[in-house]
Amino acid sequence: MLKGEIITVGTEILMGQITNTNAAYISNELLKLGVGVYYHSVVGDNHKRLMEVLSCSLDRADIIVLTGGLGPTGDDITRETVAELLQLPLQKDQDWESRLEKFFSQRNRPMVESNRKQALVPRGGKLLPNEKGTAPGVYLEYKNNTVVLLPGPPEEMKHVFKKQVCPLLKDKLEFAGEKGVLLSRSLRIVGLGESAIEDKLQPWLNNQDNPTIAPLAKRAEVHLRITARSKTKDEAIKLIDDKEKEISGALGDYIYGRDEEELEHVVARLLWEKEKTLAVGESCSGGLLCHRLTNVPGSSGFLLAGMVTYSNEAKMNLLEVKKDTLLDKGAVSEAVALQMAQGSRRRTGADIGISITGIAGPSGGTPDKPVGLTYLALDTQGFSFCRKYQMWGEREDIKIRVSQVALNLLRLHLLGLIEQC
Amino acid sequence: MLKGEIITVGTEILMGQITNTNAAYISNELLKLGVGVYYHSVVGDNHKRLMEVLSCSLDRADIIVLTGGLGPTGDDITRETVAELLQLPLQKDQDWESRLEKFFSQRNRPMVESNRKQALVPRGGKLLPNEKGTAPGVYLEYKNNTVVLLPGPPEEMKHVFKKQVCPLLKDKLEFAGEKGVLLSRSLRIVGLGESAIEDKLQPWLNNQDNPTIAPLAKRAEVHLRITARSKTKDEAIKLIDDKEKEISGALGDYIYGRDEEELEHVVARLLWEKEKTLAVGESCSGGLLCHRLTNVPGSSGFLLAGMVTYSNEAKMNLLEVKKDTLLDKGAVSEAVALQMAQGSRRRTGADIGISITGIAGPSGGTPDKPVGLTYLALDTQGFSFCRKYQMWGEREDIKIRVSQVALNLLRLHLLGLIEQC
Repeated sequence: MLKGEIITVGTEILMGQITNTNAAYISNELLKLGVGVYYHSVVGDNHKRLMEVLSCSLDRADIIVLTGGLGPTGDDITRETVAELLQLPLQKDQDWESRLEKFFSQRNRPMVESNRKQALVPRGGKLLPNEKGTAPGVYLEYKNNTVVLLPGPPEEMKHVFKKQVCPLLKDKLEFAGEKGVLLSRSLRIVGLGESAIEDKLQPWLNNQDNPTIAPLAKRAEVHLRITARSKTKDEAIKLIDDKEKEISGALGDYIYGRDEEELEHVVARLLWEKEKTLAVGESCSGGLLCHRLTNVPGSSGFLLAGMVTYSNEAKMNLLEVKKDTLLDKGAVSEAVALQMAQGSRRRTGADIGISITGIAGPSGGTPDKPVGLTYLALDTQGFSFCRKYQMWGEREDIKIRVSQVALNLLRLHLLGLIEQC
Repeated sequence: MLKGEIITVGTEILMGQITNTNAAYISNELLKLGVGVYYHSVVGDNHKRLMEVLSCSLDRADIIVLTGGLGPTGDDITRETVAELLQLPLQKDQDWESRLEKFFSQRNRPMVESNRKQALVPRGGKLLPNEKGTAPGVYLEYKNNTVVLLPGPPEEMKHVFKKQVCPLLKDKLEFAGEKGVLLSRSLRIVGLGESAIEDKLQPWLNNQDNPTIAPLAKRAEVHLRITARSKTKDEAIKLIDDKEKEISGALGDYIYGRDEEELEHVVARLLWEKEKTLAVGESCSGGLLCHRLTNVPGSSGFLLAGMVTYSNEAKMNLLEVKKDTLLDKGAVSEAVALQMAQGSRRRTGADIGISITGIAGPSGGTPDKPVGLTYLALDTQGFSFCRKYQMWGEREDIKIRVSQVALNLLRLHLLGLIEQC
């Protein structure tokens, strides 16, 4: 497999003013072509440091993609630095210069002298036209390296990559007999921590071959990435499918989805499939459960209403919680959670009512009822239950974890698995 | 000025599955402390390549921050690789190990053997407690370098950086006589786009000296960073204060806050100051306004209830919207927005009722009422008003923009500025 490396040039990234999304995009695209990326670097608009980083890359990578520093200003030094390091003189591309002249005259803007340097290409390089700006890219085969220069603005970079670089690299890889693919899929897991997952997957983790697997902790869930290398895409998919089957055997219903599919999307899909409507009664999660559910396009088809009842009065007025229960058991209790779920269903006529009551902190905790204590209840016709949880973290973390557990309870209930979870 | 360098460890970044937001955050924080960052690198979970990258950094940087690779799994190699390269044996931190044991037993989860390695610290290093996860950071002074290890998940990384690393680096810089080199403050602006702000600030933007100013577009708001260089911190603050005064003259009430202060915090503060209670009736924002308000600790002191009324029935039952109005004007109309605001106040006894009704898309739009059309209404005793907006973007963008406008209307109302906005 050919080795790729990405160098992003721009002081604004080193100052933290801009996130390096270009590197993520190019990595992903190279991977799809079958080029593994081994390093990313970011360096400022500085000649000496760019020389150092680039010469290091020439030694360790086959394909080097640089992005940024192709503009017209004095700051923009990528083209010149590459030419100097590879000892290739810069030559004018007449076509591009004419195009620049036309570009400026059409817009009634003066073309300053510095714009002309954007028509320069290191000898032997191929100019890659940029239809979205004045900075073209460059594709260069030099000794054992392929060096690609791309403009920095993400829209221009993506456009030049897709339209110009992709076909050139495909040809190159085909010629080199490297037309292999690297394909990956993420399994999304909820309700089990990273180390517990690793425990269950010990046999596979200790015996990595092709495909490989790697767990990645996210907020309130874990993603397990399966990556396969193969000659063809179909073969890679087959390898991943087989590995997923094995892993599903070990993790079962803890796996809730794949790739970009978020938990709220899975719950929404299940509600649609089962033709169930939902009402939500929230206290400590403060509207987050509703917010997540309503991020799903079309959620108005199943979500009848949500009530955020922070005060006892709101719990009584909006969710018909009994005053006696609030006084006897307190707002954070199993009895109140159940009444909230029942009330939200009764008030809206929904098939399912779900409720959350707890202490999100930082204040409001007591020795008996510490910050993070939460009751979740679910109510449907003829069936209701409540679960108690002790969450941890800060206020916003607790809200996120609580909403995650609520969505997972909904999922398990809709799958008919609630006894097993 | 001390030189900083950031190394992010994680194959998922090289595969383009994750954007390297950690590097941007750390760069920005180091800059605030007066450390200039000269390189970012990303390397996979690979011992040999991490050794190479790290040894290169030791030669060229003073302060090296590594993030990622501190988890419990076999993939996680940062701690071990740093120890090996610096030839410092790993030693167990008894306190952290006890804490891990307690963490797992409290959650009734088994602690697997691999978790114990998270209590290891290279000799001479300081363990940096992580209150949001099981992976602590490490701070290490080694010969001429400061090496900092941080966990990879952004929330944990930020928490450990802010709480643990910042004070240590501040001390170090003070000791090295590098105090107060560079200070910056962000002014947070809402209700005015980036180019309109540039227009108003033309005299200052064209004439940059010390402090410098730079606008940065964020989602539904703009931050204007004022950066001053000076010998002492007091001098730098004075410079920033003076510049802020000038800019406030040009931007007035569009500036809502500073630095980390989010719009919901400003609204919460005003509600507390004026001793007003609030009720929220949401439709297209789907609970996001409530979620943002309840992210503020202590929001239960002013927020009585929120009602997410997606269906017409919910608007009638929960917010007392009249059936005739819904039939005549439609759910997305000025009349319904006003009734929702009035209803939310009446149902809860709150001082202020605020409501949002609109079309978040992607479906549901018509030529008369396109996606993004939104009405916001506010109702208090003896005063009510409604505003119409045309939002743009995708569903989640529209929800965010709508919630932002609602919070800003609340802010302006509480400041007595509603006629001027």
